[in-house]
Amino acid sequence: MRRTEKEQRDLINKIKRIEGQVRGVQRMVEEDRYCIDILTQVQAARAALTQVGLAILENHAKGCVVQAIEQGDASVIEEMLASVRNFVK
Amino acid sequence: MRRTEKEQRDLINKIKRIEGQVRGVQRMVEEDRYCIDILTQVQAARAALTQVGLAILENHAKGCVVQAIEQGDASVIEEMLASVRNFVK
Amino acid sequence: MRRTEKEQRDLINKIKRIEGQVRGVQRMVEEDRYCIDILTQVQAARAALTQVGLAILENHAKGCVVQAIEQGDASVIEEMLASVRNFVK
Amino acid sequence: MRRTEKEQRDLINKIKRIEGQVRGVQRMVEEDRYCIDILTQVQAARAALTQVGLAILENHAKGCVVQAIEQGDASVIEEMLASVRNFVK
Repeated sequence: MRRTEKEQRDLINKIKRIEGQVRGVQRMVEEDRYCIDILTQVQAARAALTQVGLAILENHAKGCVVQAIEQGDASVIEEMLASVRNFVK
Repeated sequence: MRRTEKEQRDLINKIKRIEGQVRGVQRMVEEDRYCIDILTQVQAARAALTQVGLAILENHAKGCVVQAIEQGDASVIEEMLASVRNFVK
Repeated sequence: MRRTEKEQRDLINKIKRIEGQVRGVQRMVEEDRYCIDILTQVQAARAALTQVGLAILENHAKGCVVQAIEQGDASVIEEMLASVRNFVK
Repeated sequence: MRRTEKEQRDLINKIKRIEGQVRGVQRMVEEDRYCIDILTQVQAARAALTQVGLAILENHAKGCVVQAIEQGDASVIEEMLASVRNFVK
């Protein structure tokens, strides 16, 4: 499913924010900041990445997957499940 | 998708093994066994549960989900995604 | 750190509840219940196991780990970290 | 525990690589690349962040935590456990 222009912009903004968080982690390591504070920032970036991953998965499932199955191709399901498995492990 | 008889039996055996692992955890706590050893057993049960969950999800996706979409009902995708989201978080 | 009698009882009750949840999963599979409902039960058991694992880890860290370090043995930290790593992956 | 210069450099290189991976995700979204390929990249960045988090936790546990306990302050354990809990959930 194509994302609407707004969805695309929102998604890119979220990813840019994660890039900023990762740069923040780097700066904190360089400045020898307190480990627990760095960890909090790492976890925030990681949680945000998980959300971005889920958003992309959702878009894929509702779009490509449904469409491919409707057109008689169920192999997309295997591919999607491999990706989910990768996320959960 | 209906599981074959063999798949059903395998799945039930896996779940029985997890039940045994959980009972093992209980016994170890009662016997005041070393925490790290108990944790190893907890993690084994948890990893096995994750695998059982993924197996059930896979069966569902390849069966019910594909079938429902082929019959024109794409709402099963939302339901499946909510379940995946629950697993990943 | 020894658990108090109440903590020990609470922990065992939680583990018994998980055993019941796992048995519930087995019954649902045997009765061919709807996959998404089974998954919800699997996830509940898994989340409860995670909490039990964290409770045991906490008890271990505040008890054995602190005590061992105070007695000059810091090797318990490595062991605990390996266990944490196992949980996170 | 202070990281050695080499450890510090290695850690910063890992973080820089993650920043690059996140930028890669952004580019792939902008170019409307195939969702599953984007997801693979998201998962790679997420797994790398987890490893960075664990490395920082390890450094903290073996350094600050051991030292604080040796000096009679066990409160660092609570703080570390809260951070682990945050990671596992």
